[in-house]
Amino acid sequence: MDRRSFLKTSAMGGGAVAAASLAAPAIAQGNRTLTMVTSWRRGFAVLDDAASYFAQMVGEISGGSLIIDKKAPGELVGAFEVFDAVSSGQADLYHSADYYFISQHPGYAYFTAVPFGGTAQEVTNWYYHGGGESLHDQLGEVFNLKGMLAGNTGSQSGGWFRKEITSADDFNGLKFRMPGLGGQVLGKMGASVQNIPGGELYQALSSGALDGLEWVGPMADESAGFQEIAKVYYTAGFHEPGAALACNVNLDVWNELSDQHKAILRYSSMATTQLQLAETLSNNGAALARLQAQGVKTLQFPDDIWDAFGTYSAEVMNENMEDTLFAAIRESFEASLANSAAWIQKSDGYYVEQRVRVLGG
Amino acid sequence: MDRRSFLKTSAMGGGAVAAASLAAPAIAQGNRTLTMVTSWRRGFAVLDDAASYFAQMVGEISGGSLIIDKKAPGELVGAFEVFDAVSSGQADLYHSADYYFISQHPGYAYFTAVPFGGTAQEVTNWYYHGGGESLHDQLGEVFNLKGMLAGNTGSQSGGWFRKEITSADDFNGLKFRMPGLGGQVLGKMGASVQNIPGGELYQALSSGALDGLEWVGPMADESAGFQEIAKVYYTAGFHEPGAALACNVNLDVWNELSDQHKAILRYSSMATTQLQLAETLSNNGAALARLQAQGVKTLQFPDDIWDAFGTYSAEVMNENMEDTLFAAIRESFEASLANSAAWIQKSDGYYVEQRVRVLGG
Repeated sequence: MDRRSFLKTSAMGGGAVAAASLAAPAIAQGNRTLTMVTSWRRGFAVLDDAASYFAQMVGEISGGSLIIDKKAPGELVGAFEVFDAVSSGQADLYHSADYYFISQHPGYAYFTAVPFGGTAQEVTNWYYHGGGESLHDQLGEVFNLKGMLAGNTGSQSGGWFRKEITSADDFNGLKFRMPGLGGQVLGKMGASVQNIPGGELYQALSSGALDGLEWVGPMADESAGFQEIAKVYYTAGFHEPGAALACNVNLDVWNELSDQHKAILRYSSMATTQLQLAETLSNNGAALARLQAQGVKTLQFPDDIWDAFGTYSAEVMNENMEDTLFAAIRESFEASLANSAAWIQKSDGYYVEQRVRVLGG
Repeated sequence: MDRRSFLKTSAMGGGAVAAASLAAPAIAQGNRTLTMVTSWRRGFAVLDDAASYFAQMVGEISGGSLIIDKKAPGELVGAFEVFDAVSSGQADLYHSADYYFISQHPGYAYFTAVPFGGTAQEVTNWYYHGGGESLHDQLGEVFNLKGMLAGNTGSQSGGWFRKEITSADDFNGLKFRMPGLGGQVLGKMGASVQNIPGGELYQALSSGALDGLEWVGPMADESAGFQEIAKVYYTAGFHEPGAALACNVNLDVWNELSDQHKAILRYSSMATTQLQLAETLSNNGAALARLQAQGVKTLQFPDDIWDAFGTYSAEVMNENMEDTLFAAIRESFEASLANSAAWIQKSDGYYVEQRVRVLGG
């Protein structure tokens, strides 16, 4: 905030001279502030971290010529209204998770995570070198948006429950929060699935409006406080093995940006993923230990429940296949995943297996 | 090249006006070209890709106010002379793998890879959120360098052999290329270990100066052509489970850069890792299939050889522990690894295991 004020003042002071005559690019385009609405309450671990890193980087590397003015839900629009706000031009860009917007188009699921989809690295491989980024552009053109991935939560936890889940039947009738196609899978298993903004989840779980929920992973979940209410925590889920976060810029705004400012946004989005994912993965282990110390029981779903997740996930994916753009995105993603996953298993996978065997732990 | 010429001309035209009086940061610092020496032959897959992405990003996001003039080995200095060249100020920065410089200080091994060390993600976690970056700075101050990670090869292959390795004894007397602490491990197993710049490896293997070698992974190795000479390829190695590439800037040059230019270099280095690693991992699978189609036999080292790697790796690591900075770096790295590896196994690891079990493949 101080920095922005400083930069604005400086720009005003130099304005008369800086105007038009200089060839140096940063001046020629002048200072610009973009309003970024988000789905994240200020200070929300992992999610708002990514949005904050992105905004900070853009300001730093533009030398203040491009400023991101970040808004929490309610400051301009609600958490799930960011898509329409940016599509219509009410805001310049948003930071959110694109699978919140599968009712606009189911293809948006792929730009966060899909059931039995890719880990963070596998999603990144597809996005930058398997066709994902250009499919994000194709989808964005329908809604007047230019998308880019900016953050990743890593593999998300299976979630918080009031009691242990011992069979797939235990999901029947359960009031559970899970967005995206994963939520549709639990719906097929009989759950009453709701999507509620992150900032309202603690209250919903506390009041009994929800029996359980999944949010992100230990670092984010601890910060949200769910351990105060539910005591059973599943550490791996089928639904978001590497959930990407995304920025989407209003396409008219994007098109009038200079090449330099476009590059600043695009490369900042990449660096955001690098920096925020590392932070999340560096903190999850210690956060999990603290949750356990507070009496949380940590479990993995047994094989037969994973089998049920698999059966219903295939159904959900197939139900969307009449949409040709969804089908094209799915085909592109699965081709990339098959290729990159096989290599990662042979290299990282086999290495880690040997490291554990040789060194223990 | 065209772009650079254009920008230089523009800057000259506006120079008289641009000088000192403006507050806007980008103008105040003017245009600047930094000479970057590398250890990579032009077009060398993976390695020169990372150096090229980095140079391109810096140019784009600075709007041409900061230009990286990339040099291949021999254009200014040799592949392994880049460290001294930048330390002394003969060049402004280098792009290389810092473990080439363990004879300057063994701690540099950690800024590429160490035996039984971290995967690319685990190294990234440590670097940005486990203390790695500040230890890189401490080490750099000794040599008048400011380091930053810029690229990662992913888990490196065990390497190329003329015949199958059936016991640890087969390394005895083998003339083999492997840099870093991994090379010292093979030395303890009786190998005659050599470090030779990448651009000279094909000739060395072809002439019989080497019996075998490890280079990077399928994409880079195919591009180097080793499959034309050796026919046995091990797909996972103990020595570089996630080898980081690095830029190091002469510290005097770094200190006189503007905050904006420092931020451009630092965030470009992060985006470089994101973009280049995704490219490498997207291409390794297809490259491996092409190698197999050319008659290359792909194998994994058996458990008893991994056990030998483990025994001698521990010896090599312990031999360096009298150096207090090496000991501090090792302690920091291992604490981060223990924490982040345990979580990754519980989340990504268990998820991938279930995905393979449920979906097959």
